[in-house]
Amino acid sequence: MTVSGPGYSPGLKGVVAGETSLAMIDGAQGRLQYRGYPVGELVEHGTYAQVAELLWTGEWPTKTDGAHLGCVPLSAAVVGTLRELPPDSNAMDALRTGLSTWGAEAGLTWPPTAEQARSVTAVAPSVLAAFARLRDGLEPVEPDPSLSLPAGFLFQLNGSPPDAAEARALEAYFIVGAEHGFNASTFTARVITSTHSDLASAVVGAIGALKGPWHGGAPSEVVNQLHEMGSPTEAEAWIRAALARGERLMGFGHRVYRAYDPRAAALRKEAEGLASVASWLQQAIAIEEIALKLLAEHKPDYPIKTNVEYYAAAVLQGVGLPPNLFPATFALARHAGWTAHALEQATANVLIRPDVRYVGPAERHLLPD
Amino acid sequence: MTVSGPGYSPGLKGVVAGETSLAMIDGAQGRLQYRGYPVGELVEHGTYAQVAELLWTGEWPTKTDGAHLGCVPLSAAVVGTLRELPPDSNAMDALRTGLSTWGAEAGLTWPPTAEQARSVTAVAPSVLAAFARLRDGLEPVEPDPSLSLPAGFLFQLNGSPPDAAEARALEAYFIVGAEHGFNASTFTARVITSTHSDLASAVVGAIGALKGPWHGGAPSEVVNQLHEMGSPTEAEAWIRAALARGERLMGFGHRVYRAYDPRAAALRKEAEGLASVASWLQQAIAIEEIALKLLAEHKPDYPIKTNVEYYAAAVLQGVGLPPNLFPATFALARHAGWTAHALEQATANVLIRPDVRYVGPAERHLLPD
Repeated sequence: MTVSGPGYSPGLKGVVAGETSLAMIDGAQGRLQYRGYPVGELVEHGTYAQVAELLWTGEWPTKTDGAHLGCVPLSAAVVGTLRELPPDSNAMDALRTGLSTWGAEAGLTWPPTAEQARSVTAVAPSVLAAFARLRDGLEPVEPDPSLSLPAGFLFQLNGSPPDAAEARALEAYFIVGAEHGFNASTFTARVITSTHSDLASAVVGAIGALKGPWHGGAPSEVVNQLHEMGSPTEAEAWIRAALARGERLMGFGHRVYRAYDPRAAALRKEAEGLASVASWLQQAIAIEEIALKLLAEHKPDYPIKTNVEYYAAAVLQGVGLPPNLFPATFALARHAGWTAHALEQATANVLIRPDVRYVGPAERHLLPD
Repeated sequence: MTVSGPGYSPGLKGVVAGETSLAMIDGAQGRLQYRGYPVGELVEHGTYAQVAELLWTGEWPTKTDGAHLGCVPLSAAVVGTLRELPPDSNAMDALRTGLSTWGAEAGLTWPPTAEQARSVTAVAPSVLAAFARLRDGLEPVEPDPSLSLPAGFLFQLNGSPPDAAEARALEAYFIVGAEHGFNASTFTARVITSTHSDLASAVVGAIGALKGPWHGGAPSEVVNQLHEMGSPTEAEAWIRAALARGERLMGFGHRVYRAYDPRAAALRKEAEGLASVASWLQQAIAIEEIALKLLAEHKPDYPIKTNVEYYAAAVLQGVGLPPNLFPATFALARHAGWTAHALEQATANVLIRPDVRYVGPAERHLLPD
């Protein structure tokens, strides 16, 4: 059943559904800017708190302005909700449920505000960390609000603060994951916001969309594949054999980026400068070189470059996160972008409601039973 | 900030984002068909369970086939979650949260199935009824699975079965609310499903979208306005004055339907045949006649007819629901449509991801701090 015609666009590919001042994505040149600032520069000089403020308010807050966003404690209701979940729940389901309870308590009203955006972004890491501890039979850890959001997440997860290199690596990951245009989860947040629903509903819906592997990907598969490859010396034979079998290398190739993914570049650069968390990252860098060489040999006319998932997996593994927390940690980082899009949608709101073509049965009638 | 151009469509109005075999909506003629069957005929001869099966499977199940869908009991985790919510939580937030917990426990996998659709549709009324009792300090009532879903909802809400007229009126309401094309909540469910996320995530996202008053409306306002109008004899002066002040009559006018809303017609017809629950409905019918006459006098060239919200409010008030449960009860009815759209999306899936136009700052750089 395929019908085409003017205005018909399943998947809305090529349909410009709105305008944004948040992310400029240039796939051909491998450029990504948040409100005009190159993402690599933001990783090098900024914090996630500054980047989030930039996305919410449009202005870059200097560090001396005191742009800080620390993790906040959970209410008894949110912790109580997380205690009800089976320990083997998908972490995205747990994050979605904990934030849904948070939203019921917060009773956020239209329109969404930067203050609301700060609140939900600051509570989400506490939700995920509490779930991760409860499922292991441990009690949640009270947050240390003096730590940055990524470091505070690791603190609540492990009960001890991360070292400087781990904190820096996860900060970089949060910055490159903060925002990326009208992907499916961000679009979901905007559709929900467009009905004048509340910001918690928008974020809860976005988490549900990011959960899908066609959007959130399968970052743990990068880790699995790197484990299978073994050492860089063994990796070459493994990759050659995989490509010969027509298999896909996880962490390479992107729908938009033909040039090197600027997020992968920023994470790699950050990783190269780190003294600790390094063995796993160094192996990933070495294997990347081999993979890019073999991919270029395999398909010389179709450039396949490293994508963000590759270095995301390396960083998340490097700071000690279990792979089943990777997608939900990505969701934590993306809170800044989701909420910034909700604010942007609300400032010039139009209900998002496409048309649909009916292709079902012609009129018919019930027969006597 | 307005930019236009080829392919630019904020709100996606007029953009055909997909195909459906579920609902045929003809606003000019006032026709609504589910898989070819006129909605009035389905209300007259069918049950919500049959209509839901029709939407999920494409075929009309005869009553002798045993198409039955009864309410199911809640798990301890879902009830535990609902106990955590503040009693004054928005009922949509409570339904969203309870179903999110249900989804974490169910661990639904891709692709969505008719069996999954039955499960989430059958559990939702139990979630809402349990929340409504808990907030009043009452314990939840175990469902009677022999009752139809709408009657079973009232049973769990009140602790006693509804009379035949109440059950029939709410059954009709559930049927007319079951499905209505690519509205914002249904579209949200399809976007989430398109990422290969699970059916619970899709429904949870849809609830968040329906919560917005631009989509789910404000059915309690119809009730408020009818109360303000008083008796039909007093109503004429009230309506004349309101129209003279340029105010909108709640429950009249629709984005799509220029002719009489077929859902309002079906509910009115059902209501006229009911012996009990009648005084409130009879008043609504009498006032509708007056309102339509005055609206036609007020704007002779622009026909404004009764919409579904008018009789929805009359029915929901008639069966004894408090207005703060109206939007969430609408959500219960719409479960059949949301889940049917998820099934339809999955059978010919394309990731739904529109483009966006960047209108933000040109490239710029961080100044030294």
